[in-house]
Amino acid sequence: MTALIGIDWGTTSFRAWRMGAEGKVLEAVGDGPGILAAGALPGGFRQALQDRIGGWLDGAPVIASGMITSRNGWVETPYLPLPLDAAALADSLTLHDGIHFVTGAVSDPDGPAPDVMRGEETEIIGHLAGGGADGLFVLPGTHSKWARARGGRITAFRTVMTGEVFAVLRDHSILGRLIQPGPGDEDAFRRGVEAGWQDGALLGRIFSARTLALLDRLAPQDIADYLSGLLIGDEVAQGARDAGGPVTIIGRGDLAARYRIALDMMGIAAVIAPPGMARRGLWEIARIKGLS
Amino acid sequence: MTALIGIDWGTTSFRAWRMGAEGKVLEAVGDGPGILAAGALPGGFRQALQDRIGGWLDGAPVIASGMITSRNGWVETPYLPLPLDAAALADSLTLHDGIHFVTGAVSDPDGPAPDVMRGEETEIIGHLAGGGADGLFVLPGTHSKWARARGGRITAFRTVMTGEVFAVLRDHSILGRLIQPGPGDEDAFRRGVEAGWQDGALLGRIFSARTLALLDRLAPQDIADYLSGLLIGDEVAQGARDAGGPVTIIGRGDLAARYRIALDMMGIAAVIAPPGMARRGLWEIARIKGLS
Repeated sequence: MTALIGIDWGTTSFRAWRMGAEGKVLEAVGDGPGILAAGALPGGFRQALQDRIGGWLDGAPVIASGMITSRNGWVETPYLPLPLDAAALADSLTLHDGIHFVTGAVSDPDGPAPDVMRGEETEIIGHLAGGGADGLFVLPGTHSKWARARGGRITAFRTVMTGEVFAVLRDHSILGRLIQPGPGDEDAFRRGVEAGWQDGALLGRIFSARTLALLDRLAPQDIADYLSGLLIGDEVAQGARDAGGPVTIIGRGDLAARYRIALDMMGIAAVIAPPGMARRGLWEIARIKGLS
Repeated sequence: MTALIGIDWGTTSFRAWRMGAEGKVLEAVGDGPGILAAGALPGGFRQALQDRIGGWLDGAPVIASGMITSRNGWVETPYLPLPLDAAALADSLTLHDGIHFVTGAVSDPDGPAPDVMRGEETEIIGHLAGGGADGLFVLPGTHSKWARARGGRITAFRTVMTGEVFAVLRDHSILGRLIQPGPGDEDAFRRGVEAGWQDGALLGRIFSARTLALLDRLAPQDIADYLSGLLIGDEVAQGARDAGGPVTIIGRGDLAARYRIALDMMGIAAVIAPPGMARRGLWEIARIKGLS
């Protein structure tokens, strides 16, 4: 018996869960089309949903979060201001084409550097709903998010474009020209992290990925790991400066491990949250709304 | 009567001067092929030289500086260590195919962040040879150089990849997607400079070029100027932090003007050097060597 279908639908990713009583996972899908791919299908998002999880759709409520509510998504929804908790997200669900869409958040909308997110708020809410502590969070990715929660509410966040900038520098700048593929080297990554937390303009420090290689002090197959470490090191040094406690990493695999290494190197306690935060957040929002 | 032919030969630029007594310019060429284009010609660099200034080559000495001495240039020459003056450059000229090549400089070759340049050292020497003061210099470009001179010698420098990073972000990242071409807007540039000198991770602050536009607080035709200001603002805030006196900008046109605006906004005195620093540096090095 399906109690709720939850979807975390991002720009290039689609994960969905069929949940039973108390949010127990009955089935899961991890490889559906992101909104860029799904939006390009002849039948659009509806077809993507039918193709991927059509067999689940038996009248149970469906809830979705992520970039699916952005301008290029299924329906564009407004951003909610901070501070933000699960109840505010439940109150603001947008019912459209039979799906309950969780909206995103905006930080400092009238200030000099406003910021937005769609999807990460649900993961943080999932962490808090599961009894996770307040504090500082990092959600690594193409666009990393650093967020703070106090008293069960998200009170601040900041986007850092580390993943995307790494990719464009590797693929389109002079720093990529000397790169050769390698097996991945943690020492090179750590060396980059040390360069990443130094003083001085970041766009000066990244040039060392070229000069060290030109001077035969960095092997071509280590340049990418060094550059990754340098960018993550700069991000972490700034993001965790006023951590005031352990940093919770919400993420998976190699990328989450890289952030933990960088935090460890700077002497900042870090824990990687267990998987399932997005699903758990969707369940919590639906529960408050009375959907499940 | 030709006393010296000087060439400033960069990756994408070629400027040459036919000089008479005391370095007086008799003829000048500003639009020859850079080393990428020249190196691809069937006859290579020799043909490029013949095509562009063949009529000048009557036996007078020829001196050249810039990326033409890099791995992809006419001849690869070693880097000279700091501190560096005109005499050291004159002592290290490399005579190859009848041309005297000025070599580049290396900073901190054994330290954690070594740096290199080829060509800018000659421009700074030109400034000093003309009676210009010591102090802090910025040479804006694809890869800006910040250099310090004391007692007529270059004592330190740092490369900052501002120009190239601006171009790859504009052309290949999400920040470019909302950009529309515009006439150039100084207010948007100044607004970017203010965001550029703030605290926090640079790769976080640049995301405001997207969020401000998403929230209709930055016009699509102003995004590029805002992003340019943000990157230059970050560079200048870090580069001129310990200026201890006026900053000399060695550069031309719109780009030099942008750096002056950013320095002015931060309350740091700045002067744009008169044109001709590369030619003057080439003359000085040749004079010390006894070529002219």
